[in-house]
Amino acid sequence: MNPSLTVGIVGATGAVGQELVRLMHERNFPFTTLRLFASARSAGRTIEHSGKKYVVEEAKPGVFAGVDLAFFAAGGSVTRALAGDAVKAGCLVIDKSSALRQEPDIPLVIPEINPEKLRAHKGIIANPNCSTAVMLMGLWPLHQLFGVKRVIISTYQSVSGTGAEAVRELEDQVQAHVAKQPLVKKVYPYQIAFNCIPHIDTFDDTGYTGEETKMAMESRKIMGLPGLKVSATTVRVPVVRAHSISVCAEFERSVDVEKARAAVAAFPGAELVDDPANKKYPTPVDFAEKVKCGVGRIRKDTAFENGLSFWVSGDNLWKGAALNAVQNAELMIRENLLKPQQG
Amino acid sequence: MNPSLTVGIVGATGAVGQELVRLMHERNFPFTTLRLFASARSAGRTIEHSGKKYVVEEAKPGVFAGVDLAFFAAGGSVTRALAGDAVKAGCLVIDKSSALRQEPDIPLVIPEINPEKLRAHKGIIANPNCSTAVMLMGLWPLHQLFGVKRVIISTYQSVSGTGAEAVRELEDQVQAHVAKQPLVKKVYPYQIAFNCIPHIDTFDDTGYTGEETKMAMESRKIMGLPGLKVSATTVRVPVVRAHSISVCAEFERSVDVEKARAAVAAFPGAELVDDPANKKYPTPVDFAEKVKCGVGRIRKDTAFENGLSFWVSGDNLWKGAALNAVQNAELMIRENLLKPQQG
Repeated sequence: MNPSLTVGIVGATGAVGQELVRLMHERNFPFTTLRLFASARSAGRTIEHSGKKYVVEEAKPGVFAGVDLAFFAAGGSVTRALAGDAVKAGCLVIDKSSALRQEPDIPLVIPEINPEKLRAHKGIIANPNCSTAVMLMGLWPLHQLFGVKRVIISTYQSVSGTGAEAVRELEDQVQAHVAKQPLVKKVYPYQIAFNCIPHIDTFDDTGYTGEETKMAMESRKIMGLPGLKVSATTVRVPVVRAHSISVCAEFERSVDVEKARAAVAAFPGAELVDDPANKKYPTPVDFAEKVKCGVGRIRKDTAFENGLSFWVSGDNLWKGAALNAVQNAELMIRENLLKPQQG
Repeated sequence: MNPSLTVGIVGATGAVGQELVRLMHERNFPFTTLRLFASARSAGRTIEHSGKKYVVEEAKPGVFAGVDLAFFAAGGSVTRALAGDAVKAGCLVIDKSSALRQEPDIPLVIPEINPEKLRAHKGIIANPNCSTAVMLMGLWPLHQLFGVKRVIISTYQSVSGTGAEAVRELEDQVQAHVAKQPLVKKVYPYQIAFNCIPHIDTFDDTGYTGEETKMAMESRKIMGLPGLKVSATTVRVPVVRAHSISVCAEFERSVDVEKARAAVAAFPGAELVDDPANKKYPTPVDFAEKVKCGVGRIRKDTAFENGLSFWVSGDNLWKGAALNAVQNAELMIRENLLKPQQG
């Protein structure tokens, strides 16, 4: 189907880039050539995976000639600087940054939810925010049954969402605690070990953070519900990997917990872990490095007539970033939407 | 006013009991005699504070003769077994357990909210659940302005709420992590280090935990709002001390963020920490061992027309337990409601 496919990863040395390299190999993604790009500072480094060595190239204009598909896993500024250049070179861009997610003509896609949008792209597919992707693995199957109209969210987000340097900061602070040394802060404005920081991304004038606003706007765009009411509080917790989300949702129609559980169990993006009598519910430690997101604690909400509350834990670097991007590309290959330039 | 006041602490060797001993001394509580009670296992132990030594006595029927005021800081079973005996002996009981909080003729009191209920007691004053007390330090001043009608809560609760053995478990797991040893679980069904566990207290048939139901029922009783709609998700996080709560509240009347902030700042139980532009908001580490609870991130909620969202961090062992009990007793002394038996 794709006799020759050259794939590039931009930001290959970062936390999400590294997961992309890993998933490309572990999932037998059908690339013939893999090229890794990063900043000038990282260029020349060698990255090994599955017995193969890749020399990191500098990400700069001109490098995308002959690249069929590029995963952008760097920040928004890199996407803004280079994605247009990649598209001009005939490369399909699947972008993890938030830079282009709200552009009306750029599809924002979770393949289990709105795969049809992949057909309408103009060279760039955007991937959702990590918390949004994980949360929707619980909300979407419930919406299909009952019709969601209002969502109140509180998140419990792991430090790997900030990046490798934040993972080190938590580890260093924990080591310092055990050694009875002072805890050093560099990445976060407050100690993150043994703490919770209700602040992810920057604050705007309304008092919401960028992360909170993204959860609202991206949920609306992905589910195709422009009028959905969303309120989010996003909080960093001392967890290494996998985000968790407490969700309270109000629906148009009367809800039923057993039907809700069955819908979650049948949804490809979710694993139902919901047996409170036997202390079974998802935790982030159990859903790190898992393809599916864990959904549990589904119950009739006590604040709304037609409400359900539930809890989701899912890998922010996988479903929240690298995996969703790879799944989008896999679906495009299966549906023959990704055509190699010299195929 | 109280020329001689004999005070007892039941459960004096536990986490809350120890804080009671400390607060009695640090706040110069006007006791003349302090007697410490605990289980037979702890009887005979010596506890020192402020240069004084106390020998722990066994808590059992008959020991309350001559005790004017007893703080019960053991579990509900101890309250059920001994509180009646204490009342018969003429002792005022201030109870931290959940055993009697919903009894119609037992006042459940936070002195900043419903101090008038202290006058109506029949020998026992109940103290609220830790998360409820901390949460209401933010909600009550807002309710007075705008009239609350619906609250959606997610908690971030510290391990000290479970007790001293849970504090040790987190510490042991962190030490094991640093030493690259397996993490041992005894208190919690899942690892708590680097994890979040959406399960506090036991589950009932509706899928809610006891902690979640308490937050709803106690908020209604303390605020005198039997029709208040409350939905709570209570979650244990790897924090040692101080609970945090993400609150989304819908009000009867139109809300105003600046008025809300002013009301919180003026409320005796709260410290306003709310300057997002300068990264100022409460965190649990900053509000451990603080008399006031930190309230911040107050903003117009995006899910409700008349809604406010906010974040509270407060010491679960202090305002959530020992401090509130002591504050209730202090107020009763000031208002001459607590009469020593041989005063």
